[in-house]
Amino acid sequence: MTMRISELSRRSGVSIPTIKYYLRERLLPPGESSSAANQASYGETHLHRLRLIRALRVVGDLDIDRIRRVVDAIDDVALPRHELLGVAQRALEPPADPDGPTDDVREARVDVDQFLEELGWEVAEDAPGRAILATTLAALRRLGRDVGADVFTPYADAADRLAWWEIETIPPSVPAGDAVERMVVGTVLFERALMALRRLAHEHHSARAGR
Amino acid sequence: MTMRISELSRRSGVSIPTIKYYLRERLLPPGESSSAANQASYGETHLHRLRLIRALRVVGDLDIDRIRRVVDAIDDVALPRHELLGVAQRALEPPADPDGPTDDVREARVDVDQFLEELGWEVAEDAPGRAILATTLAALRRLGRDVGADVFTPYADAADRLAWWEIETIPPSVPAGDAVERMVVGTVLFERALMALRRLAHEHHSARAGR
Repeated sequence: MTMRISELSRRSGVSIPTIKYYLRERLLPPGESSSAANQASYGETHLHRLRLIRALRVVGDLDIDRIRRVVDAIDDVALPRHELLGVAQRALEPPADPDGPTDDVREARVDVDQFLEELGWEVAEDAPGRAILATTLAALRRLGRDVGADVFTPYADAADRLAWWEIETIPPSVPAGDAVERMVVGTVLFERALMALRRLAHEHHSARAGR
Repeated sequence: MTMRISELSRRSGVSIPTIKYYLRERLLPPGESSSAANQASYGETHLHRLRLIRALRVVGDLDIDRIRRVVDAIDDVALPRHELLGVAQRALEPPADPDGPTDDVREARVDVDQFLEELGWEVAEDAPGRAILATTLAALRRLGRDVGADVFTPYADAADRLAWWEIETIPPSVPAGDAVERMVVGTVLFERALMALRRLAHEHHSARAGR
C-alpha cells in the first residue's frame, strides 16, 4: 500500500517539515511520483526508515551526518555482511579528536591496551573503543585525578555481563538484511536506556545515602 | 603564574584556533590584558576550564550549546549546591523531541513508570530518564519489536550495581565548589567509557560465539 506525505506524517508521528528536511538531506529515499501533479507517494519502506531515523536522532541523539553514514552502511548491499556490521558500528562512533592524540593520550593508550589484555578480551588493535578509553583516561588525569586504567574495572565487569547476555539472546535466524539494523538499533537504543537508568539509579542511591 | 595563549595551547594540547573559538563562544573566560599590546595572559583556571571543555567535547561528544549550559551551571555561584547538581545534570541531557510526545510515547511512559516502581527506585516524577526510557521503548515498538518495559531489566541491574558503587566511593569531603564538576566529569567520562567497553565486549563475545 502507498500513502501521501500527510499520512506518512500521521503514521510516523514526524511532522511534514521534518520529513521534507530528511528527504532534502537524502536520509529518506524519494517517494514515487504519482498521477496527481506534485504528489509523491510513499510505502512501508519509507515508514520504517523514518522510524529508524527518528530513533537514532531523538533517542540516540546522533547528528545528521552520523545518521547518514549509518543508513548508507545499511543500504550498501555490496558489502559482505561481517564488513557491513563493522562499517555501521564505526559510523556510530564519534569523530576522532581533530587535534590528534597528544603525548598523554598515547601514554594512556599503553595502559588501556594492557588493561584489556589482562581482561583477556580479544578485540582488534584498531577498535575505536581502545582510543576512546585512552582519551577518557588522559582526560581524567588532566583534570587532576591520579588514576590507572583499572579505574574502569567496575565498568568493564558491567559491560562484560551485558554484552554476553546481549549476544546470547540474539535469535539464531535473523535475516541477513535485518542484522545490521538490529545491531544499530540495539547498540544505540539500549545504550541510551542504560545511560538513563544509570542516572536514575544515581538519583535513587543519592537520596538513600543522603548526599 | 600566568601564560600566553601559545603556552596555554602547548600545556592543554588544544590548538590556538580552537582556543580562540572557545573564547569567542564564551565557554572560556577572557584572559587578562597584559602590558604588551594585544597579548592577553591566562592562568591555571583557564587551563583547567579548557581541559574540562575538551573532556566534554572530545570524550563526551557534547555539542557547544550543551557544554555552555554545563559550564554556566558550574559557574552559577548563586544556586544552592543541591540545585546546582540538578541543573548541571539536566544540562547534560539531550534536548526533548521537538515534535513532542506522541500517543505511543505516552503509553510507553505508563509502562516505564510502573517498571521503575516495581524496581523500588525513588526518582522524581520529572526526572529526564523516565522520558528517555519511554521514548526508547516506543521507538523499539515502532521498529517492530513486541516488548514490554521489562526489556530493560538487565540494564537496570547493571546500572543499579554501578550507581551504588559510584555513590559509595565518593570521598566524604569533596569541597562544595568541586562537587558539580566532579559529578559532570563522572557522569560524562565514565558514561563514555562504559559505552566503549560495551562495544569492545560485543566484539569479544561475538568473536567467541562465532557470529
